[in-house]
Amino acid sequence: MEELKQRILRDGHVIHKDVLKVDGFLNHQLDIGLLDRIGEQFYARFHSAGVTKILTIESSGIAVATLTARHFMVPVVFARKAPSLTHLDDKFSAEVYSYTQRKQFTIFVSSEYISHSDKVLVIDDFLANGQALLGLAKIVHQSGAALAGAGIVIEKAFQDGGDLVRNAGIDVFSLAKVTKMSHGKIYFAD
Amino acid sequence: MEELKQRILRDGHVIHKDVLKVDGFLNHQLDIGLLDRIGEQFYARFHSAGVTKILTIESSGIAVATLTARHFMVPVVFARKAPSLTHLDDKFSAEVYSYTQRKQFTIFVSSEYISHSDKVLVIDDFLANGQALLGLAKIVHQSGAALAGAGIVIEKAFQDGGDLVRNAGIDVFSLAKVTKMSHGKIYFAD
Repeated sequence: MEELKQRILRDGHVIHKDVLKVDGFLNHQLDIGLLDRIGEQFYARFHSAGVTKILTIESSGIAVATLTARHFMVPVVFARKAPSLTHLDDKFSAEVYSYTQRKQFTIFVSSEYISHSDKVLVIDDFLANGQALLGLAKIVHQSGAALAGAGIVIEKAFQDGGDLVRNAGIDVFSLAKVTKMSHGKIYFAD
Repeated sequence: MEELKQRILRDGHVIHKDVLKVDGFLNHQLDIGLLDRIGEQFYARFHSAGVTKILTIESSGIAVATLTARHFMVPVVFARKAPSLTHLDDKFSAEVYSYTQRKQFTIFVSSEYISHSDKVLVIDDFLANGQALLGLAKIVHQSGAALAGAGIVIEKAFQDGGDLVRNAGIDVFSLAKVTKMSHGKIYFAD
Protein backbone atom coordinates (compact mmCIF):
# COMPACT_ATOMS: atom_id res chain seq x y z
CA MET A 1 0.00 0.00 0.00
CA GLU A 2 1.87 2.99 -1.31
CA GLU A 3 0.30 5.61 0.99
CA LEU A 4 1.26 3.52 4.02
CA LYS A 5 4.86 3.02 2.87
CA GLN A 6 5.26 6.75 2.27
CA ARG A 7 3.85 7.45 5.72
CA ILE A 8 6.26 4.97 7.32
CA LEU A 9 9.16 6.64 5.51
CA ARG A 10 7.98 10.10 6.63
CA ASP A 11 6.99 9.42 10.24
CA GLY A 12 8.56 6.08 11.20
CA HIS A 13 11.60 6.00 13.44
CA VAL A 14 14.08 3.14 13.67
CA ILE A 15 14.85 2.58 17.36
CA HIS A 16 17.68 0.21 18.20
CA LYS A 17 18.31 -2.17 15.34
CA ASP A 18 14.94 -3.83 14.92
CA VAL A 19 12.27 -1.66 16.55
CA LEU A 20 10.20 0.50 14.21
CA LYS A 21 8.34 3.25 16.05
CA VAL A 22 5.21 4.43 14.28
CA ASP A 23 3.58 6.20 17.20
CA GLY A 24 2.63 9.16 15.02
CA PHE A 25 -0.15 7.34 13.15
CA LEU A 26 -0.57 3.73 14.38
CA ASN A 27 0.56 2.99 17.94
CA HIS A 28 -0.12 6.05 20.07
CA GLN A 29 -1.62 8.74 17.85
CA LEU A 30 -4.03 7.30 15.28
CA ASP A 31 -4.54 8.72 11.80
CA ILE A 32 -8.17 7.73 11.39
CA GLY A 33 -8.33 8.47 7.64
CA LEU A 34 -5.29 6.31 6.92
CA LEU A 35 -6.54 3.51 9.18
CA ASP A 36 -9.89 3.56 7.41
CA ARG A 37 -8.17 3.20 4.02
CA ILE A 38 -6.11 0.34 5.50
CA GLY A 39 -9.38 -1.30 6.53
CA GLU A 40 -10.61 -0.88 2.96
CA GLN A 41 -7.54 -2.75 1.66
CA PHE A 42 -8.17 -5.65 4.04
CA TYR A 43 -11.78 -5.69 2.89
CA ALA A 44 -10.71 -5.76 -0.77
CA ARG A 45 -8.44 -8.75 -0.07
CA PHE A 46 -10.78 -10.79 2.18
CA HIS A 47 -14.33 -9.67 1.30
CA SER A 48 -15.21 -12.95 -0.41
CA ALA A 49 -13.93 -15.12 2.48
CA GLY A 50 -17.24 -15.11 4.36
CA VAL A 51 -15.80 -13.32 7.41
CA THR A 52 -18.22 -13.19 10.36
CA LYS A 53 -15.88 -11.82 13.03
CA ILE A 54 -12.67 -9.84 13.30
CA LEU A 55 -10.21 -10.82 16.01
CA THR A 56 -7.36 -8.65 17.26
CA ILE A 57 -5.35 -8.11 20.42
CA GLU A 58 -5.27 -5.12 22.77
CA SER A 59 -4.21 -2.38 22.48
CA SER A 60 -2.64 -1.38 19.21
CA GLY A 61 -4.72 -3.71 17.06
CA ILE A 62 -8.08 -2.31 18.19
CA ALA A 63 -8.29 0.83 16.06
CA VAL A 64 -7.29 -0.92 12.82
CA ALA A 65 -9.61 -3.83 13.56
CA THR A 66 -12.46 -1.41 14.29
CA LEU A 67 -12.03 0.48 11.03
CA THR A 68 -11.66 -2.80 9.12
CA ALA A 69 -14.85 -4.18 10.68
CA ARG A 70 -16.74 -1.11 9.49
CA HIS A 71 -16.18 -2.32 5.92
CA PHE A 72 -17.13 -5.92 6.68
CA MET A 73 -20.02 -4.91 8.96
CA VAL A 74 -19.11 -7.62 11.49
CA PRO A 75 -18.21 -7.39 15.20
CA VAL A 76 -14.66 -7.09 16.52
CA VAL A 77 -13.43 -9.24 19.38
CA PHE A 78 -10.20 -8.18 21.01
CA ALA A 79 -8.14 -10.68 22.96
CA ARG A 80 -7.21 -9.36 26.38
CA LYS A 81 -3.83 -9.70 28.01
CA ALA A 82 -4.70 -10.30 31.64
CA PRO A 83 -7.84 -11.32 33.51
CA SER A 84 -9.66 -8.48 35.23
CA LEU A 85 -12.42 -8.40 37.80
CA THR A 86 -15.17 -8.36 35.17
CA HIS A 87 -13.98 -11.57 33.52
CA LEU A 88 -15.18 -15.04 34.37
CA ASP A 89 -14.26 -18.54 33.34
CA ASP A 90 -14.83 -20.18 29.98
CA LYS A 91 -12.08 -18.65 27.97
CA PHE A 92 -10.00 -19.62 24.98
CA SER A 93 -6.40 -18.72 25.73
CA ALA A 94 -2.81 -18.88 24.57
CA GLU A 95 0.60 -18.04 25.99
CA VAL A 96 2.43 -15.36 24.03
CA TYR A 97 5.96 -14.09 24.46
CA SER A 98 6.43 -10.41 23.66
CA TYR A 99 9.96 -9.60 22.51
CA THR A 100 9.19 -5.86 22.72
CA GLN A 101 8.09 -6.06 26.34
CA ARG A 102 10.39 -9.00 27.11
CA LYS A 103 7.75 -10.96 28.95
CA GLN A 104 5.37 -13.85 28.61
CA PHE A 105 1.68 -13.16 28.97
CA THR A 106 -1.61 -14.95 28.56
CA ILE A 107 -4.07 -13.72 25.96
CA PHE A 108 -7.66 -14.81 26.21
CA VAL A 109 -11.07 -14.50 24.58
CA SER A 110 -14.31 -15.30 26.32
CA SER A 111 -15.85 -18.40 24.76
CA GLU A 112 -19.12 -16.47 24.36
CA TYR A 113 -17.74 -14.42 21.50
CA ILE A 114 -16.29 -16.92 19.03
CA SER A 115 -18.04 -20.14 18.05
CA HIS A 116 -17.56 -23.01 15.62
CA SER A 117 -19.89 -21.31 13.13
CA ASP A 118 -17.63 -18.24 12.85
CA LYS A 119 -15.16 -17.43 10.12
CA VAL A 120 -12.53 -15.25 11.73
CA LEU A 121 -10.22 -12.67 10.16
CA VAL A 122 -7.30 -11.73 12.41
CA ILE A 123 -6.11 -8.12 12.17
CA ASP A 124 -2.95 -6.80 13.81
CA ASP A 125 -0.66 -3.79 13.55
CA PHE A 126 2.68 -5.66 13.34
CA LEU A 127 3.98 -9.05 12.36
CA ALA A 128 7.52 -9.56 13.66
CA ASN A 129 8.27 -12.86 15.39
CA GLY A 130 4.72 -14.13 14.83
CA GLN A 131 3.99 -15.04 18.45
CA ALA A 132 0.87 -12.87 18.79
CA LEU A 133 -0.59 -14.11 15.51
CA LEU A 134 0.09 -17.77 16.38
CA GLY A 135 -1.58 -17.18 19.76
CA LEU A 136 -4.66 -15.69 18.09
CA ALA A 137 -4.76 -18.58 15.59
CA LYS A 138 -4.61 -21.01 18.52
CA ILE A 139 -7.61 -19.26 20.09
CA VAL A 140 -9.55 -19.51 16.82
CA HIS A 141 -8.65 -23.22 16.64
CA GLN A 142 -9.85 -23.80 20.22
CA SER A 143 -13.21 -22.18 19.41
CA GLY A 144 -13.76 -24.50 16.45
CA ALA A 145 -14.14 -21.50 14.15
CA ALA A 146 -12.47 -21.29 10.74
CA LEU A 147 -9.58 -18.88 10.20
CA ALA A 148 -10.10 -16.78 7.07
CA GLY A 149 -6.60 -15.32 7.25
CA ALA A 150 -4.69 -12.43 8.76
CA GLY A 151 -4.41 -8.79 7.72
CA ILE A 152 -1.22 -7.13 8.95
CA VAL A 153 -0.40 -3.44 8.67
CA ILE A 154 3.41 -3.72 8.87
CA GLU A 155 5.38 -6.94 8.48
CA LYS A 156 9.00 -6.89 9.57
CA ALA A 157 10.04 -9.39 6.92
CA PHE A 158 13.61 -9.59 8.26
CA GLN A 159 12.27 -11.34 11.37
CA ASP A 160 11.08 -14.93 11.25
CA GLY A 161 7.37 -14.48 12.02
CA GLY A 162 6.24 -14.28 8.39
CA ASP A 163 7.73 -17.67 7.48
CA LEU A 164 6.52 -19.19 10.73
CA VAL A 165 2.86 -18.25 10.28
CA ARG A 166 2.78 -18.96 6.51
CA ASN A 167 4.32 -22.38 7.15
CA ALA A 168 1.54 -22.91 9.68
CA GLY A 169 -0.89 -22.50 6.78
CA ILE A 170 -2.20 -19.03 7.65
CA ASP A 171 -3.14 -16.79 4.71
CA VAL A 172 -1.26 -13.62 5.68
CA PHE A 173 -1.72 -10.34 3.83
CA SER A 174 0.66 -7.52 4.82
CA LEU A 175 0.23 -3.97 3.56
CA ALA A 176 3.87 -2.96 4.03
CA LYS A 177 6.75 -5.43 4.18
CA VAL A 178 9.89 -3.97 5.70
CA THR A 179 12.88 -6.01 4.48
CA LYS A 180 15.65 -4.09 6.16
CA MET A 181 16.27 -1.27 8.64
CA SER A 182 19.77 0.09 8.62
CA HIS A 183 21.35 3.34 9.81
CA GLY A 184 17.92 4.80 10.44
CA LYS A 185 16.74 3.94 6.90
CA ILE A 186 13.77 1.73 6.13
CA TYR A 187 13.62 -0.57 3.07
CA PHE A 188 10.51 -2.27 1.66
CA ALA A 189 9.95 -5.40 -0.44
CA ASP A 190 9.32 -4.57 -4.15
CA MET B 1 -29.36 7.41 24.07
CA GLU B 2 -32.26 5.00 23.93
CA GLU B 3 -30.61 2.34 21.72
CA LEU B 4 -27.68 2.16 24.14
CA LYS B 5 -29.90 1.84 27.22
CA GLN B 6 -31.88 -0.97 25.60
CA ARG B 7 -28.65 -2.73 24.71
CA ILE B 8 -27.35 -2.40 28.27
CA LEU B 9 -30.63 -3.86 29.58
CA ARG B 10 -30.44 -6.72 27.07
CA ASP B 11 -26.74 -7.63 27.23
CA GLY B 12 -25.37 -6.02 30.41
CA HIS B 13 -24.62 -8.15 33.46
CA VAL B 14 -24.39 -6.89 37.01
CA ILE B 15 -21.36 -8.53 38.62
CA HIS B 16 -20.90 -8.06 42.35
CA LYS B 17 -22.76 -4.98 43.53
CA ASP B 18 -21.21 -2.24 41.41
CA VAL B 19 -19.55 -3.82 38.40
CA LEU B 20 -21.48 -3.65 35.13
CA LYS B 21 -20.18 -6.08 32.54
CA VAL B 22 -20.86 -5.03 28.96
CA ASP B 23 -18.35 -7.30 27.25
CA GLY B 24 -20.88 -8.24 24.57
CA PHE B 25 -20.73 -4.89 22.75
CA LEU B 26 -18.24 -2.49 24.42
CA ASN B 27 -15.41 -4.06 26.41
CA HIS B 28 -14.42 -7.31 24.72
CA GLN B 29 -16.66 -7.81 21.70
CA LEU B 30 -17.38 -4.53 19.89
CA ASP B 31 -20.64 -3.76 18.10
CA ILE B 32 -19.21 -1.49 15.42
CA GLY B 33 -22.59 -0.15 14.24
CA LEU B 34 -23.63 0.83 17.75
CA LEU B 35 -20.23 2.38 18.50
CA ASP B 36 -20.43 4.40 15.30
CA ARG B 37 -23.85 5.76 16.30
CA ILE B 38 -22.41 6.56 19.75
CA GLY B 39 -19.67 8.52 17.98
CA GLU B 40 -22.35 10.38 16.05
CA GLN B 41 -24.00 11.41 19.34
CA PHE B 42 -20.71 12.76 20.68
CA TYR B 43 -20.23 14.65 17.43
CA ALA B 44 -23.74 16.14 17.68
CA ARG B 45 -22.99 17.35 21.21
CA PHE B 46 -19.44 18.69 20.67
CA HIS B 47 -19.19 19.49 16.95
CA SER B 48 -19.13 23.24 17.51
CA ALA B 49 -16.41 23.09 20.19
CA GLY B 50 -13.50 23.31 17.74
CA VAL B 51 -12.13 19.88 18.65
CA THR B 52 -8.71 19.16 17.06
CA LYS B 53 -7.88 15.94 18.86
CA ILE B 54 -9.59 13.10 20.68
CA LEU B 55 -7.91 11.66 23.75
CA THR B 56 -8.74 8.32 25.33
CA ILE B 57 -7.04 5.61 27.36
CA GLU B 58 -6.13 2.06 26.40
CA SER B 59 -7.76 -0.37 25.86
CA SER B 60 -11.52 -0.09 26.11
CA GLY B 61 -11.68 3.57 25.09
CA ILE B 62 -9.91 3.08 21.76
CA ALA B 63 -12.75 1.71 19.61
CA VAL B 64 -15.27 4.36 20.74
CA ALA B 65 -12.70 7.13 20.35
CA THR B 66 -11.81 5.85 16.86
CA LEU B 67 -15.44 5.81 15.68
CA THR B 68 -16.03 9.22 17.26
CA ALA B 69 -12.96 10.67 15.53
CA ARG B 70 -14.30 9.50 12.18
CA HIS B 71 -17.14 12.01 12.58
CA PHE B 72 -14.84 14.84 13.71
CA MET B 73 -12.13 13.93 11.19
CA VAL B 74 -9.39 14.51 13.77
CA PRO B 75 -6.67 12.17 15.11
CA VAL B 76 -7.06 10.03 18.23
CA VAL B 77 -4.35 9.89 20.87
CA PHE B 78 -4.63 7.08 23.38
CA ALA B 79 -2.89 7.39 26.73
CA ARG B 80 -0.82 4.31 27.51
CA LYS B 81 -0.65 2.56 30.83
CA ALA B 82 2.97 1.53 31.08
CA PRO B 83 6.15 2.54 29.28
CA SER B 84 7.36 0.08 26.65
CA LEU B 85 10.61 -0.26 24.79
CA THR B 86 9.45 1.98 21.95
CA HIS B 87 8.68 4.93 24.24
CA LEU B 88 11.10 7.66 25.10
CA ASP B 89 11.12 10.64 27.43
CA ASP B 90 9.09 13.81 27.09
CA LYS B 91 5.75 12.62 28.29
CA PHE B 92 2.74 14.12 29.97
CA SER B 93 1.64 11.77 32.72
CA ALA B 94 -0.72 11.19 35.63
CA GLU B 95 -1.17 8.62 38.37
CA VAL B 96 -4.50 6.81 38.22
CA TYR B 97 -5.96 4.34 40.67
CA SER B 98 -8.13 1.64 39.11
CA TYR B 99 -10.76 0.31 41.48
CA THR B 100 -11.63 -2.48 39.02
CA GLN B 101 -8.05 -3.73 38.86
CA ARG B 102 -7.26 -2.60 42.41
CA LYS B 103 -3.98 -1.02 41.49
CA GLN B 104 -2.31 2.30 40.82
CA PHE B 105 -0.80 2.90 37.42
CA THR B 106 0.80 5.68 35.44
CA ILE B 107 -0.87 6.86 32.26
CA PHE B 108 1.14 8.88 29.79
CA VAL B 109 0.99 10.64 26.45
CA SER B 110 4.03 11.56 24.42
CA SER B 111 4.41 15.34 24.36
CA GLU B 112 4.69 15.16 20.55
CA TYR B 113 0.99 14.45 20.18
CA ILE B 114 -0.80 17.16 22.18
CA SER B 115 0.20 20.81 22.10
CA HIS B 116 -1.04 24.14 23.47
CA SER B 117 -2.84 24.83 20.18
CA ASP B 118 -5.05 21.74 20.54
CA LYS B 119 -8.62 21.57 21.72
CA VAL B 120 -9.07 18.11 23.19
CA LEU B 121 -12.21 16.03 23.57
CA VAL B 122 -11.80 13.14 26.00
CA ILE B 123 -13.75 9.97 25.18
CA ASP B 124 -14.06 7.00 27.51
CA ASP B 125 -16.25 3.93 27.93
CA PHE B 126 -17.08 4.32 31.63
CA LEU B 127 -17.23 7.05 34.25
CA ALA B 128 -17.33 5.55 37.74
CA ASN B 129 -14.98 7.05 40.32
CA GLY B 130 -13.62 9.59 37.84
CA GLN B 131 -9.94 8.79 38.35
CA ALA B 132 -9.19 8.00 34.69
CA LEU B 133 -10.96 11.13 33.46
CA LEU B 134 -9.20 13.36 36.01
CA GLY B 135 -5.89 11.81 34.94
CA LEU B 136 -6.61 12.53 31.27
CA ALA B 137 -7.66 16.10 32.15
CA LYS B 138 -4.39 16.54 34.02
CA ILE B 139 -2.48 15.42 30.91
CA VAL B 140 -4.42 17.93 28.77
CA HIS B 141 -3.61 20.63 31.33
CA GLN B 142 0.11 19.76 31.27
CA SER B 143 0.16 20.05 27.49
CA GLY B 144 -1.31 23.56 27.60
CA ALA B 145 -4.17 22.45 25.35
CA ALA B 146 -7.80 23.38 26.03
CA LEU B 147 -10.24 20.71 27.19
CA ALA B 148 -13.44 20.78 25.13
CA GLY B 149 -15.19 18.29 27.41
CA ALA B 150 -15.68 14.59 27.88
CA GLY B 151 -17.95 12.12 26.12
CA ILE B 152 -18.75 9.06 28.24
CA VAL B 153 -20.62 5.97 27.05
CA ILE B 154 -21.86 4.74 30.46
CA GLU B 155 -21.82 6.80 33.65
CA LYS B 156 -22.34 4.93 36.90
CA ALA B 157 -24.11 7.85 38.52
CA PHE B 158 -24.28 6.08 41.89
CA GLN B 159 -20.51 6.42 42.23
CA ASP B 160 -18.87 9.75 42.96
CA GLY B 161 -16.92 10.32 39.74
CA GLY B 162 -19.62 12.36 37.99
CA ASP B 163 -19.78 14.96 40.78
CA LEU B 164 -16.02 15.00 41.12
CA VAL B 165 -15.30 15.78 37.46
CA ARG B 166 -18.20 18.21 37.03
CA ASN B 167 -17.08 20.08 40.15
CA ALA B 168 -13.63 20.24 38.54
CA GLY B 169 -15.29 22.21 35.73
CA ILE B 170 -15.26 19.49 33.06
CA ASP B 171 -18.18 19.50 30.60
CA VAL B 172 -19.22 15.84 30.81
CA PHE B 173 -21.75 14.31 28.43
CA SER B 174 -22.86 10.74 29.25
CA LEU B 175 -25.02 8.70 26.89
CA ALA B 176 -26.40 6.37 29.57
CA LYS B 177 -26.54 7.23 33.26
CA VAL B 178 -27.01 4.21 35.49
CA THR B 179 -28.49 5.36 38.80
CA LYS B 180 -28.83 2.03 40.52
CA MET B 181 -27.95 -1.65 40.13
CA SER B 182 -29.84 -3.96 42.43
CA HIS B 183 -30.60 -7.70 42.37
CA GLY B 184 -29.22 -7.93 38.85
CA LYS B 185 -31.45 -5.09 37.63
CA ILE B 186 -30.16 -1.89 36.04
CA TYR B 187 -31.90 1.49 36.48
CA PHE B 188 -31.28 4.65 34.41
CA ALA B 189 -31.73 8.36 35.09
CA ASP B 190 -34.87 9.81 33.43
